[in-house]
Amino acid sequence: MSKGNLIIVSGPSGSGKDTILNELFKLHPDIEFSISNVTRKRREGEGDKYHFITKEEFLRLLDDDMMLEYNEYLGNFYGTPRLPVEKAIEAGHDIIVEIDVNGAEKIKKKMPQAISIFILPPSMEILQNRLKRRGTETDDQIDDRLTQAKNEIARISQYDYVVFNDELSDAVKDVEMIILSNRMKYKNQQQTIERKF
Amino acid sequence: MSKGNLIIVSGPSGSGKDTILNELFKLHPDIEFSISNVTRKRREGEGDKYHFITKEEFLRLLDDDMMLEYNEYLGNFYGTPRLPVEKAIEAGHDIIVEIDVNGAEKIKKKMPQAISIFILPPSMEILQNRLKRRGTETDDQIDDRLTQAKNEIARISQYDYVVFNDELSDAVKDVEMIILSNRMKYKNQQQTIERKF
Repeated sequence: MSKGNLIIVSGPSGSGKDTILNELFKLHPDIEFSISNVTRKRREGEGDKYHFITKEEFLRLLDDDMMLEYNEYLGNFYGTPRLPVEKAIEAGHDIIVEIDVNGAEKIKKKMPQAISIFILPPSMEILQNRLKRRGTETDDQIDDRLTQAKNEIARISQYDYVVFNDELSDAVKDVEMIILSNRMKYKNQQQTIERKF
Repeated sequence: MSKGNLIIVSGPSGSGKDTILNELFKLHPDIEFSISNVTRKRREGEGDKYHFITKEEFLRLLDDDMMLEYNEYLGNFYGTPRLPVEKAIEAGHDIIVEIDVNGAEKIKKKMPQAISIFILPPSMEILQNRLKRRGTETDDQIDDRLTQAKNEIARISQYDYVVFNDELSDAVKDVEMIILSNRMKYKNQQQTIERKF
């Protein structure tokens, strides 16, 4: 059995990373998605996007070193649990963590073998247009998003791969190629090779 | 302009690496192929498979550190010139060196950023059958090839990627994915990103 990989995906709001990942999961239902633990209350209609746990449970997981990364925001905790990631990898499945640049940096420190991908829009102008077209934010909020995007892109050198999201179908193929090619790494196939030869 | 990559391809005789690379060059005429310098005489109908140079020329290249690797066999020199590889990379082209395990090890030491791929047959039995079906070697020669294959596979851990050549079209796609995904590495796109953002 070959081992799976942990794949970190980041990218500014409006880069289209959610859409890319949704398309990817349609093509590869075997790829898992890391679900965050959060201590805030579930909102109407949020479904199973997060694991909602108590602060006590979260702090216990932290004490037991069971979180790959976490942060505190407005009195609540948000983080990536370690166990589902390790289980997926051992079972030979790839697992994707969608996370911001800070979280990506923390995970990469704990798991240097993780593969990190940054999704870029073709340009800042196009990113601005996409955010405007989306129509869900005010002009001030869009300005904040753009500033945040610039700050994130300034730290892009910590990523292994960069995918430009110009055409959605191309970007999906690019992310797919990165994931599939990493399955062919010697270290991921070592057991299979040793069994056969 | 993005930089190109040096791609090292190895695999035992009968693994099908020549056929895979021929198919790949049809799909991607932009990918270059590193032509070896050799000091032996050109054989009938060999065309431009090698650069035939004199021993004096070869030794001068060696003195000037212009060879990525070389070896001596029956009084003649064979080696990979450095300049065409560096030129291709600077021009943003990928360039493939097809070479044995010893040569691959030497090149990887000089250019650790090179991407190395080992082509494996599905099993030793299938390799043996392929060599027999080829009908170009005696039984003794086939035994030698199999021993050599085992020795090469014993050193497979030095390679970045391993591709199983079960179905030719799949193996071609696998090698293609490895090459295309490496173009998306941050370090290869750094200049483009810095220009755009």
